[in-house]
Amino acid sequence: MTEKNFLTIKEAIKKGKGKVSIRGWVYRERGSNKLKFIVLRDSTEIIQCVVKKEKINEKLWEEIDKIQVEASLELTGTIKEDKRAPTGYEVDVDDIKIIGESNEFPINKSLNEELLGDRRHLWLRSRKMTAVMKIRSRYVQAREEFFIKEGFVEIQPPCIISTSSEGGTELFEVKYFEKKAYLAQSPQLYKQMIACSMEKTFTITPVWRAEKHNTTRHINEIRQMDIEVAFTNQESIMKYLEKVLQYIVTKVLDNCDKELEVLGRKGKVKVPKAVYLHYEEAIKAVGGKVGEDFSPEQERKLCEKYPDSIVFTHSWPTEIKPFYIMPKDEKIASIESCGFDALYGGVEITSGGQRIHLPELLIGMIKKKGLNPKNFKDYIDSFRYGAPPHSGWSIGLERLTQMICGLDNIKEATMFPRDRDRLTP
Amino acid sequence: MTEKNFLTIKEAIKKGKGKVSIRGWVYRERGSNKLKFIVLRDSTEIIQCVVKKEKINEKLWEEIDKIQVEASLELTGTIKEDKRAPTGYEVDVDDIKIIGESNEFPINKSLNEELLGDRRHLWLRSRKMTAVMKIRSRYVQAREEFFIKEGFVEIQPPCIISTSSEGGTELFEVKYFEKKAYLAQSPQLYKQMIACSMEKTFTITPVWRAEKHNTTRHINEIRQMDIEVAFTNQESIMKYLEKVLQYIVTKVLDNCDKELEVLGRKGKVKVPKAVYLHYEEAIKAVGGKVGEDFSPEQERKLCEKYPDSIVFTHSWPTEIKPFYIMPKDEKIASIESCGFDALYGGVEITSGGQRIHLPELLIGMIKKKGLNPKNFKDYIDSFRYGAPPHSGWSIGLERLTQMICGLDNIKEATMFPRDRDRLTP
Repeated sequence: MTEKNFLTIKEAIKKGKGKVSIRGWVYRERGSNKLKFIVLRDSTEIIQCVVKKEKINEKLWEEIDKIQVEASLELTGTIKEDKRAPTGYEVDVDDIKIIGESNEFPINKSLNEELLGDRRHLWLRSRKMTAVMKIRSRYVQAREEFFIKEGFVEIQPPCIISTSSEGGTELFEVKYFEKKAYLAQSPQLYKQMIACSMEKTFTITPVWRAEKHNTTRHINEIRQMDIEVAFTNQESIMKYLEKVLQYIVTKVLDNCDKELEVLGRKGKVKVPKAVYLHYEEAIKAVGGKVGEDFSPEQERKLCEKYPDSIVFTHSWPTEIKPFYIMPKDEKIASIESCGFDALYGGVEITSGGQRIHLPELLIGMIKKKGLNPKNFKDYIDSFRYGAPPHSGWSIGLERLTQMICGLDNIKEATMFPRDRDRLTP
Repeated sequence: MTEKNFLTIKEAIKKGKGKVSIRGWVYRERGSNKLKFIVLRDSTEIIQCVVKKEKINEKLWEEIDKIQVEASLELTGTIKEDKRAPTGYEVDVDDIKIIGESNEFPINKSLNEELLGDRRHLWLRSRKMTAVMKIRSRYVQAREEFFIKEGFVEIQPPCIISTSSEGGTELFEVKYFEKKAYLAQSPQLYKQMIACSMEKTFTITPVWRAEKHNTTRHINEIRQMDIEVAFTNQESIMKYLEKVLQYIVTKVLDNCDKELEVLGRKGKVKVPKAVYLHYEEAIKAVGGKVGEDFSPEQERKLCEKYPDSIVFTHSWPTEIKPFYIMPKDEKIASIESCGFDALYGGVEITSGGQRIHLPELLIGMIKKKGLNPKNFKDYIDSFRYGAPPHSGWSIGLERLTQMICGLDNIKEATMFPRDRDRLTP
């Protein structure tokens, strides 16, 4: 491999004229006796390249003439504007080299979802999937930038745990030598324990739910983005969410213009406003019953009432919030809690709130929810030593990506989804 | 909770004089009839605070007088320099409030490793563990900054897989509904498949090894930091490692001065140089036999010959490298490979190299290693469509943290370690 100064296709287009060396994969090709048009793709863009038979030796021309979609190439030529070309520029090729051949690339528009899923590792090369993954990456980076500026410490909680964190039954079992263990459904309890030494923490970590049903809204392996902050309450923790979402969307809009265009999302994604509603006001506004969760339909309805907004519904009933959410006024009998949800783009993207930091209240709430405090001994004990009020929330990375990219199915928001039936690739 | 403008202790010390409001936990305390000295800690620093009986009401004085280690407090007072105080400053307290009581905090110097391990969630509050976790966090952030600047895309590979990635036997089994699945030992195969669409990728992801032996160098759940880059070879991928390690150490030195001091590492951590040795030269230099791996003792010896350096040993024998490492000259019979290791601070921190991108060569190498190509069908197929030469490496986050922080046991480099016997907290 010669050490030329290769530009990305995006850089080459920016340069706009003169000699360029680029490399990538054949996205499309068509030819005649004397000319071969190759649309080359790399991870940044696509560009039309024209190879003239007269310019290269006969043997090479024969190979280039037979080149197939997804073969990889290096080439050097002169770039110039050409309004007829797909991305407005064309490279007149002087020199070309085949790096990797391709034979009948098995991805095309006719394939159904199942077959595309089986060939995920190849489907990822499509402009659509590349755009989704780049937006996802930008969003992860933006979140990191935001919390670093805010002085947070990044943590990595354990994934294999000895017992269920939230009392759910949708756990995957792990054979841990002679013991039975589980894959964490949530880093909840760990991040709370850590907040008492690190104060302001954030993480991106895998979590697992053994979802028995295949839906377009659920996958079984999720990357979750959590924060947990000492000396905060429901209000201040919601504010962090408002700020970081606005930051994330701003960064995606600033950096992923091309990707949003490829996904047909140009002009549809806006930096959101924030709307704060009491749970009761919200549930009534969508014709629901106080004391119940919102259905997906009701969530959509609420977002329609407040377009281009993050809709916070706060102070939920203790009855339908997890055991660790602080009841209002720190009273076990309180009907209201310090727990909230947030909707964005028609779906629930976050739930969170202030946690219980008082051991006796916590024991009481654990029992109230029908769980055994003995299974939470370390967790409860961690609050016996100066635990301050603290709060947090979590966002599913895939769900937010699905929403920003306008994807029908959450499986498209991750590279290699895991669901009820799918374990490969 | 009143909304004062609380400073971190570090910020208060920087301010150096005047009124400050701070909050944190009791690190140490001692008292007399009229004075109580409390050394307060938060996640940034510790500071001595003096409470005078005459300044606060009797009831509050009684509570403060009985305060125990790790209780949490908010206080306001005047800060001034005092060379006798532990961190050179003292706060003369005007106003103080107890946030969370503490009763007989069960962590002290007399506890053995086992008991400290059981109380991990409390041990994390120590200055030592806080320093380790802050350095770890800074190192993760530095890595992110470096690769974002280089135009890399961040990815999150799957953790539950259907088959062993590298043919090892140290896998944890997962009960995936009616199927048997495993926890990934490495994201190797996935990041390679992704490099053909994203070109330059990096990740931080958990991996698991079912280590049967308890040692100071191994844990069973690891956070691994990987990169995989299209159009690269062994030389260029080693260069990325050299640059990112220098960047990481620079950032730790710039930002974690206090933490390094707490760990007794001040002056001992330096931005490393890089030394490149052919495997043969290196193994002979430490009295080893060509064709064999380096023992921990030999690795230490090699690092002693080249202090303050990353020691790269490249072009290892194909015999002792994984099946996916490219043999020299792309020949299956080659004795030399394009695989390398890197040592730093006396230990191996990375292995990597150029990968095989040619399907037939890959099948041949899989068979040569006694594995069944049928188990790698999707992986092999992904190289049939224009796969370019590509390379990568991985670093264990805990191992590098252990090395930078000078820790005896790798378990101290992670918040909640998992080993042969430990599954909690």
